[in-house]
Amino acid sequence: VRAILSENGAEGEKRISVVNAAEVVDMHDDPSTAVRHKKDSSMAVSLALLRDGGGDAVISAGNTGALLSGATLVIKRIRGIRRAAMAPVLPNGNKGALLIDCGANVDCTPEYLLQFAFMGSFYSRRVLGCAEPRVALLNIGTEDTKGGELQKAAYALLKEAGEAGRINFVGNVESSDVFSGGVDVIVTDGYSGNILLKTIEGTAKFMLEHMKAVLTSSKKAKLGAALVRDDLRALKKLMDPGEVGGTPFLGVKQPVFKAHGSSDAKAICNAVRQAISFVEAGVTAEIEHNIEYMKLKQTQGGTDNEGV
Amino acid sequence: VRAILSENGAEGEKRISVVNAAEVVDMHDDPSTAVRHKKDSSMAVSLALLRDGGGDAVISAGNTGALLSGATLVIKRIRGIRRAAMAPVLPNGNKGALLIDCGANVDCTPEYLLQFAFMGSFYSRRVLGCAEPRVALLNIGTEDTKGGELQKAAYALLKEAGEAGRINFVGNVESSDVFSGGVDVIVTDGYSGNILLKTIEGTAKFMLEHMKAVLTSSKKAKLGAALVRDDLRALKKLMDPGEVGGTPFLGVKQPVFKAHGSSDAKAICNAVRQAISFVEAGVTAEIEHNIEYMKLKQTQGGTDNEGV
Repeated sequence: VRAILSENGAEGEKRISVVNAAEVVDMHDDPSTAVRHKKDSSMAVSLALLRDGGGDAVISAGNTGALLSGATLVIKRIRGIRRAAMAPVLPNGNKGALLIDCGANVDCTPEYLLQFAFMGSFYSRRVLGCAEPRVALLNIGTEDTKGGELQKAAYALLKEAGEAGRINFVGNVESSDVFSGGVDVIVTDGYSGNILLKTIEGTAKFMLEHMKAVLTSSKKAKLGAALVRDDLRALKKLMDPGEVGGTPFLGVKQPVFKAHGSSDAKAICNAVRQAISFVEAGVTAEIEHNIEYMKLKQTQGGTDNEGV
Repeated sequence: VRAILSENGAEGEKRISVVNAAEVVDMHDDPSTAVRHKKDSSMAVSLALLRDGGGDAVISAGNTGALLSGATLVIKRIRGIRRAAMAPVLPNGNKGALLIDCGANVDCTPEYLLQFAFMGSFYSRRVLGCAEPRVALLNIGTEDTKGGELQKAAYALLKEAGEAGRINFVGNVESSDVFSGGVDVIVTDGYSGNILLKTIEGTAKFMLEHMKAVLTSSKKAKLGAALVRDDLRALKKLMDPGEVGGTPFLGVKQPVFKAHGSSDAKAICNAVRQAISFVEAGVTAEIEHNIEYMKLKQTQGGTDNEGV
């Protein structure tokens, strides 16, 4: 690390400290125990530094599950927050739409979804710059009565929060409309959010590969392809989640960001920028300030310390 | 209808009968009661004809929910089948992958998913021509332990059916890999299946629109666009669910197909072809023959007549 800093003329740069970490959390480590067992991994060391005031945010491109468990274990959740959630930004040709959750919590309760809605709304306003984020519930139809038990119960809670003026709830959104630009925050359980996110990834990959194949299939197409190559490259970039910077874990006390495993220098740079905005914007303080509105009366104070 | 038949030289064609239906089920009708209340709608009339031997299959481009309820109500489910499921074919550059369910059943039990796996496998082999369909469970990771309660329990049932040699179960599939060509049948609950299907639709639309915008943004791009226009049109078609014909409702006693609401003549023609294959292939007989393997012991014969 020091050699690379030196090569790039950043040796002795006051804003950079190098802290040693001798272990590696890899993709095969059990996410729930990796940070606890590998106390000298960069993940465990950086999270401990963050907790102890040695930094303001952690960014990692490593094992997602391990980072999430580690963040919850070391940094802890904000008091009253039931579960931390992952909130990537989906492309929509404009500022993007925040998807919360996308995989941290497979089985969710309506209360988790209510909390995701608040956290997503605060993040969208303070970090992504949406003045009045339009919060929608992911569902399989736009009518109030759509979805399963979870969606129906969550809809009622979000509607109530919307009517009280605490969030700008705009109703259900179908997954075909997440690109429409009509919503800024998409609330869902981690299972469906993960299906949504990875379907976008798969569809984009399939279409771009297919296009590449047809564009090299004839002389005429090859000529056309040469002329539109830059535009296709831009589209590929637009659909790439790495381009929008890191994915924040919302609900933990301090900023922890997951960068895409295939991040290049620019993606990491974007994640750093986003982490700075997160720290400066006071998202955590706003969540703490509003926590009473984010809990269901009957379970208040109940399960704060369970799970991630 | 008779005037159009005549215009197209099909007046007096022995294979075509026109049956009058004076009512219309529209998109605002309550799906669960539409067919019961509008007994003279084309949907109700055609389903009654099918039930009474006046035809071999029904194809409709109308209200999906009404058609599903109507099919279950009028045609009835195959004895032992808990729920009918919708099974569209997703594009994958080859024969496509059958997605079952995609919205008929929002909240599912592991047993429903087991039945979807069998029905999808039979349909894929007999109608789509897959010799040994590779059946996968939609999940958020490929490891056995991934997913929520539903996925874990369904995984165990599918694994057991695979080990008994009744289906070719290949494990979990992530939604980023449905286009990979590595799976032929994707089993999931109707909620996730609907999210998957509509995300493909939304992503394809977003990408094609974006491409159209960039391809008309400069003279150079316009020239390139002119050369690749046909290829882009082919891609649009490839991603269009209407192109693969109708979506069968698997689990009802006779073939009922849902054609896309925006179907053109060719899409309807494809749906007709698919319906013919369905009838000739004996899918229903195979389901009936294997029904004992498709039920959980403890609930056998239990809830045959509930819900759709």
